[in-house]
Amino acid sequence: MTWLETSTENCTVQRALDIVGEKWSLLVLRDAMNGVRRFDDFRRHVGLSEAVLADRLRKLVGSGVLETVPYREPGSRTRHEYRLTRKGWDLWPVMIALKQWGDHYTADPGGPPLEVRHRDCGEHVEAVIVCGGGHGTLTPRQAYTRPGASARRAN
Amino acid sequence: MTWLETSTENCTVQRALDIVGEKWSLLVLRDAMNGVRRFDDFRRHVGLSEAVLADRLRKLVGSGVLETVPYREPGSRTRHEYRLTRKGWDLWPVMIALKQWGDHYTADPGGPPLEVRHRDCGEHVEAVIVCGGGHGTLTPRQAYTRPGASARRAN
Repeated sequence: MTWLETSTENCTVQRALDIVGEKWSLLVLRDAMNGVRRFDDFRRHVGLSEAVLADRLRKLVGSGVLETVPYREPGSRTRHEYRLTRKGWDLWPVMIALKQWGDHYTADPGGPPLEVRHRDCGEHVEAVIVCGGGHGTLTPRQAYTRPGASARRAN
Repeated sequence: MTWLETSTENCTVQRALDIVGEKWSLLVLRDAMNGVRRFDDFRRHVGLSEAVLADRLRKLVGSGVLETVPYREPGSRTRHEYRLTRKGWDLWPVMIALKQWGDHYTADPGGPPLEVRHRDCGEHVEAVIVCGGGHGTLTPRQAYTRPGASARRAN
């Protein structure tokens, strides 16, 4: 079965994008990975309307990427802040890979406005594709695709 | 300068998403990485309208992620097919990272419909974040962020 003959109905890239494949959702996650937790901070920093932010946060909480945690400041009512779950942090490679591509192709001449580095040595981090069998980093040409167990023929 | 004080105006994640941060664009790229090149094949397999596909392809060509190459079948007029450029293939880590997350969290019980493996040994490929200084794979906790050279204070 070639890729064109394979149904995309259960494609896991498509399903991942159904959850996080919207620009504002990914920008909310970018901020969450940078420590932002509160509604007003997201709204102001990501730069979107209350309605759109509320919708995206609801969707991200609903899919288990973010979770709400109550907090209360003196003299205020209880509010909720948004924290990444394990499922949310597992998107870190996606975010770093996106940033790496953006750094390379879209950065200002001086470089990107944010750097991500290894805590121990201070070197930049890199998103790479490696062989699960321990044969190091791979280029697209060093990989091949084949139908998986759940591959179905497209109608 | 904390992240919340930093302007997102020149954020490279945001700029990357301005180019490819739309679900249908990423699904077109998914198919392109799987060898799809022709308009009608994209339209049928990705499952979108002619108008939306034409718009996304135009945008991806305009940003240098895809390029058009003329071809002609016997008895037909010259048409164009769409091929990934180097800039487009450089999105491979993004795609594999997305697929990996989708495989883990959204796949059918039997697994994903497509597998990507190392040509030499047949093992699955993995998207990982590594230290550029050679200290192996990193988790988010092993990394820190700091303002880059072009960081500007948000208004």
